[in-house]
Amino acid sequence: MKSNPISLNCDMGESYGHWKMGNDEKVMPFVDQSSIACGFHASDPVIMSRTIRLALKYDVQIGAHPSYPDMQGFGRRSIPMTIEEITSMVIYQVGALKALCESVNAEISYIKPHGALYNDMLKDIQIFEAVVDAASCFNVPLMMLAIHDKQDWLDVADNYDVPLLFEAFADRRYLATGQLAPRTMPGSVMTDEDEILNQVTQIARYGKVRTLDGYTISLEADTICVHGDNDDAINMIEKIRQTLKMEGS
Amino acid sequence: MKSNPISLNCDMGESYGHWKMGNDEKVMPFVDQSSIACGFHASDPVIMSRTIRLALKYDVQIGAHPSYPDMQGFGRRSIPMTIEEITSMVIYQVGALKALCESVNAEISYIKPHGALYNDMLKDIQIFEAVVDAASCFNVPLMMLAIHDKQDWLDVADNYDVPLLFEAFADRRYLATGQLAPRTMPGSVMTDEDEILNQVTQIARYGKVRTLDGYTISLEADTICVHGDNDDAINMIEKIRQTLKMEGS
Amino acid sequence: MKSNPISLNCDMGESYGHWKMGNDEKVMPFVDQSSIACGFHASDPVIMSRTIRLALKYDVQIGAHPSYPDMQGFGRRSIPMTIEEITSMVIYQVGALKALCESVNAEISYIKPHGALYNDMLKDIQIFEAVVDAASCFNVPLMMLAIHDKQDWLDVADNYDVPLLFEAFADRRYLATGQLAPRTMPGSVMTDEDEILNQVTQIARYGKVRTLDGYTISLEADTICVHGDNDDAINMIEKIRQTLKMEGS
Amino acid sequence: MKSNPISLNCDMGESYGHWKMGNDEKVMPFVDQSSIACGFHASDPVIMSRTIRLALKYDVQIGAHPSYPDMQGFGRRSIPMTIEEITSMVIYQVGALKALCESVNAEISYIKPHGALYNDMLKDIQIFEAVVDAASCFNVPLMMLAIHDKQDWLDVADNYDVPLLFEAFADRRYLATGQLAPRTMPGSVMTDEDEILNQVTQIARYGKVRTLDGYTISLEADTICVHGDNDDAINMIEKIRQTLKMEGS
Repeated sequence: MKSNPISLNCDMGESYGHWKMGNDEKVMPFVDQSSIACGFHASDPVIMSRTIRLALKYDVQIGAHPSYPDMQGFGRRSIPMTIEEITSMVIYQVGALKALCESVNAEISYIKPHGALYNDMLKDIQIFEAVVDAASCFNVPLMMLAIHDKQDWLDVADNYDVPLLFEAFADRRYLATGQLAPRTMPGSVMTDEDEILNQVTQIARYGKVRTLDGYTISLEADTICVHGDNDDAINMIEKIRQTLKMEGS
Repeated sequence: MKSNPISLNCDMGESYGHWKMGNDEKVMPFVDQSSIACGFHASDPVIMSRTIRLALKYDVQIGAHPSYPDMQGFGRRSIPMTIEEITSMVIYQVGALKALCESVNAEISYIKPHGALYNDMLKDIQIFEAVVDAASCFNVPLMMLAIHDKQDWLDVADNYDVPLLFEAFADRRYLATGQLAPRTMPGSVMTDEDEILNQVTQIARYGKVRTLDGYTISLEADTICVHGDNDDAINMIEKIRQTLKMEGS
Repeated sequence: MKSNPISLNCDMGESYGHWKMGNDEKVMPFVDQSSIACGFHASDPVIMSRTIRLALKYDVQIGAHPSYPDMQGFGRRSIPMTIEEITSMVIYQVGALKALCESVNAEISYIKPHGALYNDMLKDIQIFEAVVDAASCFNVPLMMLAIHDKQDWLDVADNYDVPLLFEAFADRRYLATGQLAPRTMPGSVMTDEDEILNQVTQIARYGKVRTLDGYTISLEADTICVHGDNDDAINMIEKIRQTLKMEGS
Repeated sequence: MKSNPISLNCDMGESYGHWKMGNDEKVMPFVDQSSIACGFHASDPVIMSRTIRLALKYDVQIGAHPSYPDMQGFGRRSIPMTIEEITSMVIYQVGALKALCESVNAEISYIKPHGALYNDMLKDIQIFEAVVDAASCFNVPLMMLAIHDKQDWLDVADNYDVPLLFEAFADRRYLATGQLAPRTMPGSVMTDEDEILNQVTQIARYGKVRTLDGYTISLEADTICVHGDNDDAINMIEKIRQTLKMEGS
């Protein structure tokens, strides 16, 4: 039985200049961790500052959310980069957010890569190591997908003394392999409220999920990722919040 | 008689992606301070990292060289920004460079705004205050033009506990007002080696310069700015270096 | 009495990558002219293509809406540029939109500079000439603010054989000088529906407006600029549309 | 025996803002075709205009040299894009260059994709079709690598009525498969003058090359790509020019 409380994290600060995205003001009260974009896929210095202040107001942890340099593609496109480029780029972005945090006596609590970089570090252990190397400069944990067989990732992270935080998804179904069912697979994304809350309960209470292909697998997660795209999504976050509270998180 | 030694500073890390600018490898051995671009007018995370390592190799101080966001204009164009935008933008850039420094056990020793931002903070005390506010987050001095009547700038900087470093130019003539003679004025830029070295000597020995319009004014400088654009410029830096050494800097 | 029909124009294609702005689908049916952003302050090649197709669907004229290069500031910041830079930059943007139009058998009917460039060409006749020079390459009219004393602008445009289209604003009050009352002046922006429709009627029927400071001045406009930021704004566009129809436009 | 004359083409306009790249002034007199960057991997509107004027001065054909949007990576990184995105992006860039050409009574004679886009369209026939679709809007040929088995590419291009121009490389060795020997393979890049001129002669006179792995294959090329990175390279271009002249090109 899973003992540690499970936190809720949400991507924040995803506006850019005059373009708005997300409802950070409405979501912030319900989450534990805000992953703030660092200006490479979204956000700019002013939006970062304001999002940091909003997190402070609701006593929400701040995570750096670095990305490939890709405003137009919102960081969802893999850009081929060398190991040196990835490490430098992540340090650059996290350092920028960290300084903005410190200017208002806030701090960075973790790093969660965004979009294609997040996916690529699960597929390519060298990219993962490049990100871990960057994270080791900040003495904060790195957040990544809760996967079934974590040992290779734990080994690399241990070499750099970087703790890992594993995140699960409330509304995405898993496969027996422990991987997320691809979005193209029917049923991979849940929309039914009861199903979503049931999966949250399973993860929080037992550290397990029922997979799309009919198995039950262990899935130990430190945090659950939610999205606040619209009012329905925000209502859902509130209910997940309550569900987790009942489970002791 | 001027007692403090005068340092030499030079802009560095001004390449971008596949485009090269400057001769950082050749200049670094002769200067005391390298002002490294932070990715808004030049440089990128990899170039910043490499320039930091080069400064470390020659035991040269590292300064952050933040700018308006203007790669195409090389930061030489004034972009109208709010006070909040300027402060956030400077913290962002300096924070990024600082983190890259700390990743190799280097540190930032000062901040010197670049190009149009450098000029604008001399013309508009509110822009100056926005930059000082940012500098105060890093506990390092701010470098600005050595001007005749410094009191207003010192007052603002004192309010934020930010020390100021004043820089003079080796090859630019001054006016009786204490301002640099505009580049459009005949004789404003010196090319004669003896004249340049003579001005350096005057500044270092007496804290004075002979102005283009025939006066002698006091000009107390902590540092002299040099440029390493080509081989002639680099030879000149060596000679200025020797001249300052003879003056006890 | 004013004889020519007055058209309605609206800025379109102002989304960027994953960020949405405006309600182009809802606004397009009610306007005569769509000024489409060209990728320097908003839009990207795909958004431009889709907006062109939307204009074609509703038989709405397409205008190029070039800007200073300033995504973060949405083109609302004046960027100091040389005459050569302005002309080249406008040709670049209009040429890009024109080619995307021609790829679907559409065409460009006019050019309307955006934001700070629009304002700057009213303040600085050299900037205006740089834009007119660019417009002359495309054999289309240039759209600018309907001002009281147009002669200087007409003279420049005549030299380049570029027709001018003058636009008025439905919800902005004017001053006796013929200029728009600054937004900071109380009452400068109308929100009352009757007042707005009354001004539209005055412009369409008499070529006159009642100024904020109590005068009646002539204001000959070819087109009225509307904005479709939200549902209220779109309702207003429909009513302005009806009002103009009753006036014979 | 090969009958058509073979042209020389070179990438041009690869500077950006204050960063210089290449020696366009020195190279232009010796080539037949200049492939001008369109602002996505290099160049900006002013540099494009000036390069167009330089080509006009020496009566050199102008080609559009569009790229993935990647200034930092100089267009050498594959960016995952949809077919719609690629077609729109190529039309945008070629349209921009075309308008700048027409503003000085020049015209575009061909399109040659740059860097990663050039390579990707050889690997993925759908990307090739997206580029051909864009090219068909301009009624100009598309330039691509001279490959051994061209039929698939010719079929797609025929569907869009787009002529193809095939280019060979003077200093790169080929394999028996007709592909370029990878740069990582020893001997893949020739530096010996006689070897380079010999390959040029073989291509021009017989439409054949001797491959790195010891075969002789046919390689019918319309044009040979040269680079003007430094003085040695420019001398080489002059000699290739003479060699081709002797072969009747």
